[in-house]
Amino acid sequence: MQRQVSLSPASLPLPLEGCGPLRPLHDSAAAPLRQQVFETVRSHGQISRIDVAKHLNVSPASVTTMVADLLAGGLLCEIPSPREPSGRGRPPVALAVRPEAGFVAGIKLSDLVHTGVVIDFAGRPVAECSLERPSLRTDVELLVNEADELFARLLAQSGMERSEISAIGLGIPGLVDHPRGVALWSPIIRGAEIPIADLMSRKMGVPVQVDNDANLLTLAELWYGAGRALPDFAVVTLEYGVGMGLVMNHRLYRGARSVGMELGHTKVQIDGALCRCGQRGCLEAYVSDYALVREASVALDMHRTASGSAQVILESLFDQAKAGNEAARTIFRRAGRFLAAGLANVINLFDPSLVILSGARMRYDYLYADEVLREVRELTLNTGRALPKIEINAWGDLVWARGAATLALDTVTRMRTGAEAAP
Amino acid sequence: MQRQVSLSPASLPLPLEGCGPLRPLHDSAAAPLRQQVFETVRSHGQISRIDVAKHLNVSPASVTTMVADLLAGGLLCEIPSPREPSGRGRPPVALAVRPEAGFVAGIKLSDLVHTGVVIDFAGRPVAECSLERPSLRTDVELLVNEADELFARLLAQSGMERSEISAIGLGIPGLVDHPRGVALWSPIIRGAEIPIADLMSRKMGVPVQVDNDANLLTLAELWYGAGRALPDFAVVTLEYGVGMGLVMNHRLYRGARSVGMELGHTKVQIDGALCRCGQRGCLEAYVSDYALVREASVALDMHRTASGSAQVILESLFDQAKAGNEAARTIFRRAGRFLAAGLANVINLFDPSLVILSGARMRYDYLYADEVLREVRELTLNTGRALPKIEINAWGDLVWARGAATLALDTVTRMRTGAEAAP
Repeated sequence: MQRQVSLSPASLPLPLEGCGPLRPLHDSAAAPLRQQVFETVRSHGQISRIDVAKHLNVSPASVTTMVADLLAGGLLCEIPSPREPSGRGRPPVALAVRPEAGFVAGIKLSDLVHTGVVIDFAGRPVAECSLERPSLRTDVELLVNEADELFARLLAQSGMERSEISAIGLGIPGLVDHPRGVALWSPIIRGAEIPIADLMSRKMGVPVQVDNDANLLTLAELWYGAGRALPDFAVVTLEYGVGMGLVMNHRLYRGARSVGMELGHTKVQIDGALCRCGQRGCLEAYVSDYALVREASVALDMHRTASGSAQVILESLFDQAKAGNEAARTIFRRAGRFLAAGLANVINLFDPSLVILSGARMRYDYLYADEVLREVRELTLNTGRALPKIEINAWGDLVWARGAATLALDTVTRMRTGAEAAP
Repeated sequence: MQRQVSLSPASLPLPLEGCGPLRPLHDSAAAPLRQQVFETVRSHGQISRIDVAKHLNVSPASVTTMVADLLAGGLLCEIPSPREPSGRGRPPVALAVRPEAGFVAGIKLSDLVHTGVVIDFAGRPVAECSLERPSLRTDVELLVNEADELFARLLAQSGMERSEISAIGLGIPGLVDHPRGVALWSPIIRGAEIPIADLMSRKMGVPVQVDNDANLLTLAELWYGAGRALPDFAVVTLEYGVGMGLVMNHRLYRGARSVGMELGHTKVQIDGALCRCGQRGCLEAYVSDYALVREASVALDMHRTASGSAQVILESLFDQAKAGNEAARTIFRRAGRFLAAGLANVINLFDPSLVILSGARMRYDYLYADEVLREVRELTLNTGRALPKIEINAWGDLVWARGAATLALDTVTRMRTGAEAAP
């Protein structure tokens, strides 16, 4: 099944049912406002025209025009307002996204388990599942097959056809050139410069966009999470590696040439610990899974074997620390200190109003114990103002996949509202 | 002389001579394009209407309308085109900024010498001078008096009155809350939370805007320097401290809450060398002037006294390194290695297409010897792409003042083209 696909309005699914016909919207001058109106409705769930106008600080008349386009285009529908009726005149009506206006999938590939979701046009999950796999660096062909298997399961679960999915967002760890769809380097893929978006897209028969997984988690925070109300915030992720995402002025920032925010590989010690990237002294080499496992193998005789995965060792290390084992505690303590330095560096550089700590390793609360947060304060330049808020989000793997789906939904929305031309 | 002043069109000087009357431009819908047209003319020196339209990718008709506004407003004038006349029809005409449309000053305060410039509306220097002073942390009142003395000398040199200067841009080292005009902390000022813009403005009788000095140097690179043609680049400055500026999408980025880019205080060694900020392991504590002087005092018996300033010691240290003194060489060698780590971190995070190394310390070429640049490469995550270009700019103090003047010119231009309302 080697199909050539591209992300165009023609490949969008026809409506199954609903309150309006589906057609692309082509008036490009109005597109930015139309997209803003649509996003306002989506982020509010239900909202009246007049409240959209207030929210965007534009005239009610221009909102009415945009809404007429979006209703005619089948992207929005009208529902009875949850607010009290006034008793006379027309009954109040609220706007909502027409959920069946389109569906997208999100897939996050990782070393131990792949996860996937299908979401509707309102951003609500329709299906979700995961696929366990051996923790190995593999050829991209194997990953493509695994992703396709996951996609098939998602389709089976949701009772949908491939042709009903408008786009797939794909998250992978490592260095990703998002505009080109190329994995420059990934800890889970053998080789370099892999045109992974294209390979996935041909296999799955649906347009695929790829990005660094931490960027996609950041997108999930921006759309659904703590960052929703904030123009600027930073996300630091701890898993097998250390990732970072940055939102500036309500938009994801990927670095000037699209491969930035590599906080995990900033140097926190000259000639320091060896990192899996081959260099020394990277932050990641002190705080990520493999750094903790390396330490555990030295002082606690825990070794990674075919049967004893990193995760098993980490759980045991965590249990021993909780039980009072000093060697185990000093391992987490050191990781916590370096994490504090990394977070302080993020604050010293970006001065964000919020830092979100995320990823599965947030289970290990040693990493953000009071003493670690105190150390962040001690390593952050004293501006006389309060430190930014630091929030812990120990969400599971599915939020990464949801972030990946958000990438796809964002692109499809821009195309459908006319704000972005089909490539 | 305690005058209350604000940055408003009313305080702008009347034209001394020129090709058009001066009046504020108030059609706010057209303001963004009008400003772009103006900036295009300023950055090109001389340019025809049709070339402006090509440069901005807009219709010649809309350029003609904007130019008519700018000519009527006294900001642009027409001059005979330097291009060959076609021989028939109207003689070709080019646009240029009317230099006398306005004047601004820029002042950079520092620990050993203050520098200042006056520039005209085309950005060309009209007067420049400097004022030596003892290297001491002082009360802000003394700095205000020193700045005013420098300003008086600039006026004397240019033969201008205070009322002819539309605005002053002020650069200081340290943490500056630019929108509020407050020095949160500066190595040259005693105390914290100093409303320095307001104090200077009252003393000098001209509206003052203040920013971190590295930001202003970055602005100078953006307007006149290597960054002119680039949407994104980073500037790292080495002087008494380490500063950083970042341009994203042709604009200076100051951090989300306006006090970011503190590269000098990112931690490169846990529990490392003591920094003048009071914390340990800051990049600055390894590569700045005072870090080198501290090392020199240990191994080379060079001590900072009232008579022996940091600069004298640094010169001697540099001479000894050149002459083959191993201790002096190892001091520069270590500083170079840490600088390499700092630059690699900038690249790992921001992925810029250009890094500009600037500041007076660029005289000490040990800091950017081949081995240092090789080390930058070795500490930068391998993306499979070429490293960004690293450029050395050993400009003198005046470029910092010119950057400060640019801040003022930018604001006055926005107001005059209607792109920004008077505060």
